[in-house]
Amino acid sequence: MDFFPSVLENLIDKFAALPGIGHKTAQRLAFYVISLSDDEALSFADAITAAKKSIEFCTVCLNLTAGDLCPVCRDSRRDAGTVCVVPDPKGVLAIERSHEYNGRYHVLHGVISPMKNIGPDDIRIKELIERVSDGSVEEVIMATNPDTEGETTARYISRLLQPFGIKVTRLAYGIPVGGSLEFVDDATLMRAIEGRLEMN
Amino acid sequence: MDFFPSVLENLIDKFAALPGIGHKTAQRLAFYVISLSDDEALSFADAITAAKKSIEFCTVCLNLTAGDLCPVCRDSRRDAGTVCVVPDPKGVLAIERSHEYNGRYHVLHGVISPMKNIGPDDIRIKELIERVSDGSVEEVIMATNPDTEGETTARYISRLLQPFGIKVTRLAYGIPVGGSLEFVDDATLMRAIEGRLEMN
Repeated sequence: MDFFPSVLENLIDKFAALPGIGHKTAQRLAFYVISLSDDEALSFADAITAAKKSIEFCTVCLNLTAGDLCPVCRDSRRDAGTVCVVPDPKGVLAIERSHEYNGRYHVLHGVISPMKNIGPDDIRIKELIERVSDGSVEEVIMATNPDTEGETTARYISRLLQPFGIKVTRLAYGIPVGGSLEFVDDATLMRAIEGRLEMN
Repeated sequence: MDFFPSVLENLIDKFAALPGIGHKTAQRLAFYVISLSDDEALSFADAITAAKKSIEFCTVCLNLTAGDLCPVCRDSRRDAGTVCVVPDPKGVLAIERSHEYNGRYHVLHGVISPMKNIGPDDIRIKELIERVSDGSVEEVIMATNPDTEGETTARYISRLLQPFGIKVTRLAYGIPVGGSLEFVDDATLMRAIEGRLEMN
């Protein structure tokens, strides 16, 4: 016997379908939404439809945007000759937070993962190749995650870019700033030693 | 500089306002909703408005219901002389799962908690007293959580019910079925010894 009305079960199911949300959490969220005022609940529902309706991919870099071009691609002060390749829009956010980068982006929307059956054609590599093929891009910085899938994706793309004679770099591996040596894992330490720099 | 369009930031904020959802998780959920098909996203939004619109409190037991009366209060085969007091609708679900209970419920929608500034008037105790005052209820089973707040709430209500000469019981404490003794905490073991039963 179902003790919750079907509209409520339906809402619980919707929440449970979200990534990383189990059934218990979905129940908790659904109960919370029910407990909101009418206005608050409506504005939640509206936020979903509004975001879904107006968010598109930037026609150049494929980042999420409300217009044709994202703020970075619209900004003429940003260096169009440098393209930083990130796995997803959160990657853009992370790099922007460093306030260190003044180039443009390319959002792959995924990484190559044989385990998850995601091949090169399932992510936005083709668009990157098209974009660099006119010769306007001088450097492509690979900023995929420092794991096997990110590494594989970076190597794959870097090979594809070779014929264009573009400089391909990737983010440096090393010990995190502010971290303590004793908590740095072996693989990172190895990379940090390999990539050691001469001190002036 | 905000790199996500404001409609997306708005959706992230809505998710982040849900209980137990941090900003990173909210981002992940919002990105996921954006990645849904138009139909799926719309049906999520609709699920919220539909649930919010049609879910009300049962006029008798205050459980969540889509009609005037919840399925339990509508069911004439359920014993109206026994009322099980639970802290929230999830409590109803838990007791129903046992398939052991054939009475009705009363949902408090909270527990007394001086720490959180929740007093007896902030939860649905008054409705319970009104409900038993016509003499139709013979037994009230306290099924609040086995913690300090649940205990306090149960004792408080039990005192209020004394003048009506109603039998007030509470769920037995003891070792969980299928559990292993070595993992049972001291307080539970103490309760289990106190409440020991004669074997036939």
